[in-house]
Amino acid sequence: MKTKKFLLPEREIPTHWYNVVADMQNKPQRMINPGTKEPLKPEDLFPLFAEELSRQEFNETDRWIEIPEEVRDKYKIYRPSPLVRAYSLEKALDTPAHIYFKNESVSPVGSHKLNSALPQVYYNKIDGTTNLTTETGAGQWGTALAFAGKAFGLEIAVYMVKISYEQKPYRRSLMQTWGAQVIASPSMSTKSGRKVLTERPTYQGSLGTAISEAIELAMQTPNCKYALGSVLNHVSLHQTIIGLEAEKQMEMAGEYPDIVIGCFGGGSNFSGISFPFLRHVIKGDKKTRFIAAEPASCPKLTRGTFKYDFGDEAGFTPLIPMYTLGHNFSPANIHAGGLRYHGAGSIVSQLKKDNFIEAIDIPQLETFEAGVLFAQTEGIIPAPESTHAIASAIREAKMAKEEGIQKVILFNLSGHGLVDMSAYDQYLAGDLKNYEISTLEIEKYLQD
Amino acid sequence: MKTKKFLLPEREIPTHWYNVVADMQNKPQRMINPGTKEPLKPEDLFPLFAEELSRQEFNETDRWIEIPEEVRDKYKIYRPSPLVRAYSLEKALDTPAHIYFKNESVSPVGSHKLNSALPQVYYNKIDGTTNLTTETGAGQWGTALAFAGKAFGLEIAVYMVKISYEQKPYRRSLMQTWGAQVIASPSMSTKSGRKVLTERPTYQGSLGTAISEAIELAMQTPNCKYALGSVLNHVSLHQTIIGLEAEKQMEMAGEYPDIVIGCFGGGSNFSGISFPFLRHVIKGDKKTRFIAAEPASCPKLTRGTFKYDFGDEAGFTPLIPMYTLGHNFSPANIHAGGLRYHGAGSIVSQLKKDNFIEAIDIPQLETFEAGVLFAQTEGIIPAPESTHAIASAIREAKMAKEEGIQKVILFNLSGHGLVDMSAYDQYLAGDLKNYEISTLEIEKYLQD
Repeated sequence: MKTKKFLLPEREIPTHWYNVVADMQNKPQRMINPGTKEPLKPEDLFPLFAEELSRQEFNETDRWIEIPEEVRDKYKIYRPSPLVRAYSLEKALDTPAHIYFKNESVSPVGSHKLNSALPQVYYNKIDGTTNLTTETGAGQWGTALAFAGKAFGLEIAVYMVKISYEQKPYRRSLMQTWGAQVIASPSMSTKSGRKVLTERPTYQGSLGTAISEAIELAMQTPNCKYALGSVLNHVSLHQTIIGLEAEKQMEMAGEYPDIVIGCFGGGSNFSGISFPFLRHVIKGDKKTRFIAAEPASCPKLTRGTFKYDFGDEAGFTPLIPMYTLGHNFSPANIHAGGLRYHGAGSIVSQLKKDNFIEAIDIPQLETFEAGVLFAQTEGIIPAPESTHAIASAIREAKMAKEEGIQKVILFNLSGHGLVDMSAYDQYLAGDLKNYEISTLEIEKYLQD
Repeated sequence: MKTKKFLLPEREIPTHWYNVVADMQNKPQRMINPGTKEPLKPEDLFPLFAEELSRQEFNETDRWIEIPEEVRDKYKIYRPSPLVRAYSLEKALDTPAHIYFKNESVSPVGSHKLNSALPQVYYNKIDGTTNLTTETGAGQWGTALAFAGKAFGLEIAVYMVKISYEQKPYRRSLMQTWGAQVIASPSMSTKSGRKVLTERPTYQGSLGTAISEAIELAMQTPNCKYALGSVLNHVSLHQTIIGLEAEKQMEMAGEYPDIVIGCFGGGSNFSGISFPFLRHVIKGDKKTRFIAAEPASCPKLTRGTFKYDFGDEAGFTPLIPMYTLGHNFSPANIHAGGLRYHGAGSIVSQLKKDNFIEAIDIPQLETFEAGVLFAQTEGIIPAPESTHAIASAIREAKMAKEEGIQKVILFNLSGHGLVDMSAYDQYLAGDLKNYEISTLEIEKYLQD
């Protein structure tokens, strides 16, 4: 049996993130101010985001952006993450394909989200910001920001969608243990929260309301800004550390991926594993395929429309050019909470439009079947989100078997599922189901 | 800032476990058959344990025991585990001490237990055993055996104490996801379970009953044996891989520990981190101190008596020479479920008797305070068991500060607490308390 893990030494942690926009011929369209209809500039974001993050958001020229030394030091807590050859999974599938996965579940918060939470807190710190607000649905982003806040000494307030606050107490405890304030949203702490609660006292909350509350608190508190864990360009930028490490590790393995796969919510982990490999395709040196694996119940890339839309349900954000199901889209309550988002970030959307990437949508039951097979062969319980990437890799490996081709497949294991075991419980008990969504229903949301 | 992690390459995974008994001048006394009063021989254990495990249990001569290649291959899933210099914790404590921890939480089951589960399943497999039974309290051992069973293709049945089965559903789901059968104990599947349930239909179970059920099922099922996750000598032997790796990693760090610390339940993780360093003390080359950190509510080493006692509450096991609180001892319901055991393994007990090791007992609140500080500085949520080792390390680091001495402290982080967040929840809400136990009460149990 050959070595399965490919480990980089710490000194090989990348010194720069990769900014794919610099290499794109068709740049992503700019965000638009919904009031003035003018394209946004970095300064427009300064009241809400750290200045350097705002500049990164619009950077179209610098291919490589240096990772601050302070951030690299914190990355060393868990990076470089391992690349693993999934021999046991290959054997179980009896496939000629070689399957590799990048294991981002080794971070102390259990997912890739920390890769962006650390620089976001750092850049806010050097701006003199002392407090940050954010929202969290399933809880992974909130957990990461809580950890990063503690690491750099900033105070973090997380508005957690009330139903998750109650159904996912372990995630809430994690944030609290790292010292963050966690508020069930809607709450009485903001005007927007109070308004919702006055009208609907028993409302269980939504990401839209939580975003409004987090932004309102940030705007009204001195030295306080706001942070977002996906969708935006600067988030994707930070996540490219995943693919940059994976590139070196694939070289250690002596192979190069024919297919790169990530699960898809707003795009941060998919971008992270894909963009560094994509640059060789843009240059014309490689023909790698990139697959974004989204839930069948929230199929923005496979069945949505490319247009300008709001990033949140309430319509407080700028207009973003994106593949979207409509900002009022209400996805089924699947366990992959991190993938229940109506739109795709603007870089990924442009790349999809230009056919650099593919997308597939996968029903919930197939993803859990894949997750259990992965747990039983490779030993790691994957997050419900990550099972979408696994299911896609399994489909490709089966196809490779049918075709008798020895493909090299690389996917990103974005996180572990140790605090999501109730989802596995329900799956094993036969209590989970697939959610169909009709084209008519999608059209209805898009017209709203 | 200096590098914090010391990582060994895979080829440095030890090829042999270290058998400290070979180096001990006063060998541990032998286990005794309670019926015949005769000392046990390896063959006496063959009906219950794999033959090689039974031989390891009594091996007093071989200092190094080879790790089978198949086991080393599975170790590669998560080993070598990192050694980390806890700079942030040192800084928070403002101590001149250098604090290192060995991070066993990186195993897919989240604790060191897999280090023995893998060889136990492997040796059973080569004996032709197809099924294994075990019991689990808090669930960490059951999880590890479930994983190891899946890794080598054996069927695993875990009797889980009923109250844990209900209170720790995530642990149960983990075992089930890895394909194990999990039965709440007492159950109707065994004679001993039925007897208990007939007499006390609402009984919430105990480790004693679960052991009886697991042993009964093993004895009555063809090709089925039994496995235990702590206390026994062969378990400690397998865990020495922790200390052997740590020894090489301390060398990479250019330091040598003055103090080695492990939390203490039956002894497996404490033995694992300690024995390899202890051999240099036995040889007279070093003066390292070894501290076993046990809960104040279950203080077998600090306040128990050295005598022959049963390993289980029901009295089905051989008589074991151990520090014990009496096999009927009923510890308070602390969150560190893995440390709620009445006795210490016979090797550790002999070493304690001969003053090679020290023990301290720590109240529950101090352990959680230490756990939260560790989470906020080093980023990893420790298991409630492991917080005892952290609390002990913090005591020593504070003492080093008072004395102005630059001591080197090494402790074992036996596992993470991600599936124990309800315990942190209760601590942060101020709902946890300390449990006092009077000397009178201890004497009462010892006389039973």
